[in-house]
Amino acid sequence: MTFGVYLPPGTESRSAPALYYLAGLTCTEETFLIKSGAIRFAAERGVALIAPDTSPRGAGIEGEDKEWDFGVGAGFYVDATALPWSRNYRMYSYVSKELPALIEANFQVTPGRRGIFGHSMGGHGALTIALQKPAAWQSVSAFSPICNPVAVPWGEKAFERYLGAERSAWSQYDASLLMRRTPYPGPILVDQGLDDKFLEGQLHPDALEQAARDGGQQLNLRRHTGYDHSYWFIQSFISEHIAWHADRLR
Amino acid sequence: MTFGVYLPPGTESRSAPALYYLAGLTCTEETFLIKSGAIRFAAERGVALIAPDTSPRGAGIEGEDKEWDFGVGAGFYVDATALPWSRNYRMYSYVSKELPALIEANFQVTPGRRGIFGHSMGGHGALTIALQKPAAWQSVSAFSPICNPVAVPWGEKAFERYLGAERSAWSQYDASLLMRRTPYPGPILVDQGLDDKFLEGQLHPDALEQAARDGGQQLNLRRHTGYDHSYWFIQSFISEHIAWHADRLR
Repeated sequence: MTFGVYLPPGTESRSAPALYYLAGLTCTEETFLIKSGAIRFAAERGVALIAPDTSPRGAGIEGEDKEWDFGVGAGFYVDATALPWSRNYRMYSYVSKELPALIEANFQVTPGRRGIFGHSMGGHGALTIALQKPAAWQSVSAFSPICNPVAVPWGEKAFERYLGAERSAWSQYDASLLMRRTPYPGPILVDQGLDDKFLEGQLHPDALEQAARDGGQQLNLRRHTGYDHSYWFIQSFISEHIAWHADRLR
Repeated sequence: MTFGVYLPPGTESRSAPALYYLAGLTCTEETFLIKSGAIRFAAERGVALIAPDTSPRGAGIEGEDKEWDFGVGAGFYVDATALPWSRNYRMYSYVSKELPALIEANFQVTPGRRGIFGHSMGGHGALTIALQKPAAWQSVSAFSPICNPVAVPWGEKAFERYLGAERSAWSQYDASLLMRRTPYPGPILVDQGLDDKFLEGQLHPDALEQAARDGGQQLNLRRHTGYDHSYWFIQSFISEHIAWHADRLR
């Protein structure tokens, strides 16, 4: 597994909180750091950035790189339980446990001071990881997340093949279902573009909003006219997300 | 020829000055807009960004895409005079005449209000184009430019094959030689990283500094410890370059 790390000025002598970014379908550990313009704001706010890859690569599973929305580049931040994926495709454990332990043991980041955010499939990952273990993540936000994956084609395809046909096993990886049951103990920021071509078919922020109302979750869901699903959208609001996390991680 | 354009808010109703960015070896019209983080600052300062490609593509010249530092992706912003390049590889005319005319006829940019900057090979392009026709460009800056191409391997290789063996024809495309003879009628900003692996062998900012002294050029050449030749360097100082141009184009 490969990942990108940015350490802000000052980490030569003292540690910084770490903000984990989970990328979307087809992305790598490079995408966010190259395309988001985040580094300048992380530097200003004294936050480290950690950018993992979106799946294992080179596991050698037949067909793993044949589809852009499943397998390589599309780990969906779950621990697969179905063959042949269950041995390698364990992105939930990797991002929530193995990677933070590795980062905190090897870089000047403050143990236990962690924020998490992401985009699209990675927004889904950030929300579900924070909702599952809120004590481990002091801040959470998302750009254009897949809010209710059990009810949309991307999620149904991935969950059926990674987790099996039994839908009850899927709910632990669905932000809207999790939030309704056990909301995150703090506000969540979500930005969504209204010219996003995946909005109607795959993202369903309305479901997240309804879950927040039902579960008593503080949710700051902002809809932006004229913005699409791309990293141009992320570039436009990245400074506000970095500030959101920095305020809560300091 | 393909190019990227960013128009800042407000250009629905009024025009903006245009800032042309010339990219370096192997880059395309996408590189700068994706990797530099410039758009946010262009938006704030009301400047349009124009990002041309670095060469013709698909001209069909034998071997055109065989070398990373010559041919496709490596037009060097000259008008080739030697066969077989002279028909297609006319980047000087394209960037200095054809493209601005096309942009000013088709987008909400103010005719004749133009700045130019670039990186590495594109820094060389920006400096030479501004020095050749200073009245056409109200502002100029560069990141890590090839300052004295007639004296370094990249420049010698490209100029010999694009322009022929007669070195006297090369000088019109050498910023240090041009500046010594006819300085630009205003200050020039150049940023250079001191951990740049091409600094000693290819870039030669000392030559530009000497030419500025000899020619009476106002040159703000800044050397930065710890920065390399990458777009991380550009990301770190892009806001200052956008401000430099905006102050002079408004």
